[in-house]
Amino acid sequence: MEQSKNTSADNDAIVPVILCGGSGTRLWPRSRKDRPKPFLPLIGERSLFEGTLDRVTGEAFASPIVVGGKAHQSLIQAQSGNGVRRIVEPSARNTAPAIALAAHMAGGDTVLLVCPSDHHIADVAAFRDAVAKGAKLARAGRLVAFGIDPTGPETGYGYIRRGDELGNEGFAIAQFVEKPDRERAIAMLAGGDHAWNGGIFMFRADTFLDELARHRPEMARAAADAFERGTSDDNALHPDPEAFDAIQGESVDYAVMEQTRVAAMVPVRMGWSDIGNWQALHEARDRDEEGNTVGGRGDLAGCRNVIIESDGPRVSVIGLENIAVVVDGDEVLVTRLDASQDVGKLPGAKSQ
Amino acid sequence: MEQSKNTSADNDAIVPVILCGGSGTRLWPRSRKDRPKPFLPLIGERSLFEGTLDRVTGEAFASPIVVGGKAHQSLIQAQSGNGVRRIVEPSARNTAPAIALAAHMAGGDTVLLVCPSDHHIADVAAFRDAVAKGAKLARAGRLVAFGIDPTGPETGYGYIRRGDELGNEGFAIAQFVEKPDRERAIAMLAGGDHAWNGGIFMFRADTFLDELARHRPEMARAAADAFERGTSDDNALHPDPEAFDAIQGESVDYAVMEQTRVAAMVPVRMGWSDIGNWQALHEARDRDEEGNTVGGRGDLAGCRNVIIESDGPRVSVIGLENIAVVVDGDEVLVTRLDASQDVGKLPGAKSQ
Repeated sequence: MEQSKNTSADNDAIVPVILCGGSGTRLWPRSRKDRPKPFLPLIGERSLFEGTLDRVTGEAFASPIVVGGKAHQSLIQAQSGNGVRRIVEPSARNTAPAIALAAHMAGGDTVLLVCPSDHHIADVAAFRDAVAKGAKLARAGRLVAFGIDPTGPETGYGYIRRGDELGNEGFAIAQFVEKPDRERAIAMLAGGDHAWNGGIFMFRADTFLDELARHRPEMARAAADAFERGTSDDNALHPDPEAFDAIQGESVDYAVMEQTRVAAMVPVRMGWSDIGNWQALHEARDRDEEGNTVGGRGDLAGCRNVIIESDGPRVSVIGLENIAVVVDGDEVLVTRLDASQDVGKLPGAKSQ
Repeated sequence: MEQSKNTSADNDAIVPVILCGGSGTRLWPRSRKDRPKPFLPLIGERSLFEGTLDRVTGEAFASPIVVGGKAHQSLIQAQSGNGVRRIVEPSARNTAPAIALAAHMAGGDTVLLVCPSDHHIADVAAFRDAVAKGAKLARAGRLVAFGIDPTGPETGYGYIRRGDELGNEGFAIAQFVEKPDRERAIAMLAGGDHAWNGGIFMFRADTFLDELARHRPEMARAAADAFERGTSDDNALHPDPEAFDAIQGESVDYAVMEQTRVAAMVPVRMGWSDIGNWQALHEARDRDEEGNTVGGRGDLAGCRNVIIESDGPRVSVIGLENIAVVVDGDEVLVTRLDASQDVGKLPGAKSQ
């Protein structure tokens, strides 16, 4: 892709990089292999992917780069505008290689804002404030992670412990902490100097590629090869499959963020959720006075904290609390909300 | 129907009279207006109606008379053999007129065994023993009710208080008690001399018609008229609609059993259930060690006392106890078992 490799965007405009990889099973049966979570209208009428695009639209942003697998290109095209550039991953190699390709495409010292496509952010103004701070740190040569203000002792996320202040924009990162057990999570929450790692990052393309070359030189070379030898059509880059497939997949957290000496974090409280399971979706949705929320047709009698999600049939529920009822085609799920992390273990979720 | 009105069956053979009226809503959405409970295979592969016919097949019994509305004749014909005689009610007038027509059809001193079509009886041998006792009392001129040995302080049934012993066959009836409140039900259960009125009766056709004429002379005349002026085709009697519709509907309990001086009861313990709601169906079904029972496709994880009933979709349930999940076409019901008496109040159940 010779023609674009050295093209850098307007130096001031941030290039959003939207990652559409991954196919979770915890929102099964609504989320399916061929219709994954980012592309579903789980909150309101826009999908999580569309909501992500909406958040990075405006003066501060150039048109985004969307990275995703072949299987999801038609969904990506259907849900994004014409100006969007796409990178079509020949295979799933986790986030570090995906971001490397986007850094090559954006080129030069362009500031990238890397966002998962399947999160929900209630407070968009707070998000944009954090982006403005992150951009300053990124322009100064930092690799920036967003540190989500934790609202509970979650054991499903990685944590970031903050270090020294970096002006008004954020902090150095003292330590990345892997998913903790509950006791550790409670202690970190009480201490007040840990935030959740929300998987949102900002850095200049050149800084990222330099740090990748320093800490994962093989991956950096292979990603550069895959980009150089790639072909392009219809606003999409198709990296060379041979070079790309040979990469050993690794997350950007492990490959770069935990290795680099220039990591920084911008703390942010923005009503963030990764909508990681039905309980998280229940919490992210508008609910009535009894805590119930109905997607599709539903009748509730004597219920509290019930989420219904139906693609057609009417769902009638009597006398239950803290459950999810999901109807999708030939699958019906009824789960206790606080057991909804086990949805992925169901035969139906595993066999799709 | 001149030709059959004075035909009496073999004097010794009992003529079963199967009542298919009524359309409950408490097993909605499996039970629907056009596909009511008696005709559903709720326990095993035979419907409750088929199970009822099975119980009254054998040496002791003549071929049955099935009484039901027009809407259900095709279901009745599909689920019963060729020898079955039918009475097609022009309108719903409760049980007393329906039984009067059957008594005219059977004629003479034939012993009738009146059975609802939507009950389940686990111990058929006990049922037949009780029928043999009831037949003796009926032949001696008694109107016999079966007194079901109560297994709990149910408030949904009428009760029968027994009086003096009548040989080895049963007891006179001291009193019929309408559906009691819980306190009264507990007291009756403790006293030991009350049984549930299961709606199963035995009497000679002539005794019944005599007692009906004594206590409900208008109804007796109108039923006789409807029978006399009825037409017949294809093994079915169509009572005269004008005469029949004019009858004021009343249950056999009110119209005859509570009025007559010759009532008797045969006590019986036979694993009886009226399958009155999803909880009752759960109790009547075979269950696994965790108390779960699955009709259709289902996967349970960490569940106890869950009943699944699905007409197609797979139902996956995680971490729940004492609930029913019912999938039927465009309706899905999830209810706490001990709230399942409220199913009939749901918009879906009321609007069908």
